[in-house]
Amino acid sequence: MVDILHRVGALATPDKIFGALTTLDGLAGWWTKDTKGDPAPGGVIEFRFEGAPPPAGFDIRVLDAEPGRRVGWQVVGGPDEWIDTKINFDLAEEDGFTIILFSHTDWREAGPFMHHCSTKWATFLLSLKQLVETGSGEPAPHDIKISNWH
Amino acid sequence: MVDILHRVGALATPDKIFGALTTLDGLAGWWTKDTKGDPAPGGVIEFRFEGAPPPAGFDIRVLDAEPGRRVGWQVVGGPDEWIDTKINFDLAEEDGFTIILFSHTDWREAGPFMHHCSTKWATFLLSLKQLVETGSGEPAPHDIKISNWH
Repeated sequence: MVDILHRVGALATPDKIFGALTTLDGLAGWWTKDTKGDPAPGGVIEFRFEGAPPPAGFDIRVLDAEPGRRVGWQVVGGPDEWIDTKINFDLAEEDGFTIILFSHTDWREAGPFMHHCSTKWATFLLSLKQLVETGSGEPAPHDIKISNWH
Repeated sequence: MVDILHRVGALATPDKIFGALTTLDGLAGWWTKDTKGDPAPGGVIEFRFEGAPPPAGFDIRVLDAEPGRRVGWQVVGGPDEWIDTKINFDLAEEDGFTIILFSHTDWREAGPFMHHCSTKWATFLLSLKQLVETGSGEPAPHDIKISNWH
């Protein structure tokens, strides 16, 4: 098993970041504009990416959401490589920043697609930082393009 | 053992990217301006970061350099967590891009500093992409700041 790990700090409260991780408007502000579904614990959120090859996105079940502390997801639909992987956002205050410790775990293979997703997650987490600090992120389809795989 | 993995594609030749990985000017153009030492195979390159806590950077031995194909490093000086870790850049052409498959392997612990380095590597690899595509990257001290750890 191999993991994608990141750490980003934003000049915003844990509650504000929690909101950006647990509301459709928040999620659409930094990951992908085409975000639908039920972001409450137990619900499934549908993230879609314009122009991506089928299945064109991810269906994600919200496993837990502790206000201002932690959000945990499990992938239930999308590319084979993502199915059953888990995504966690842990929040903590440090030096006036809210630190987001991010992990996307339980990948079965460290192939090129996982390398790609690791770099893309970094850009989306910086989009989340930008959203909560400035009010405007860079969600798909206006996300930073990093290669032939977009 | 846990690894940092990334994948970035640049609209530039493998030779141009190889140059940015194997010359002091090239390295100073995307990672840190304060780059000294011997970038030839067997040599040690000294990367320093203004304002970073001691040891303020990394000493890296060049293990191998296959023109247009691959560059491999081993960390011989710097923070404890980095000592003896390995860094590889594998280059391949795909769809008109040169793809950089990056790995920083042999970390002994997946702590917060590794999470931080994973995100910073993404930003520096995008700085490398920008350098070879436009002639100008974002090396330290002008690198993208991602948290209280810079």
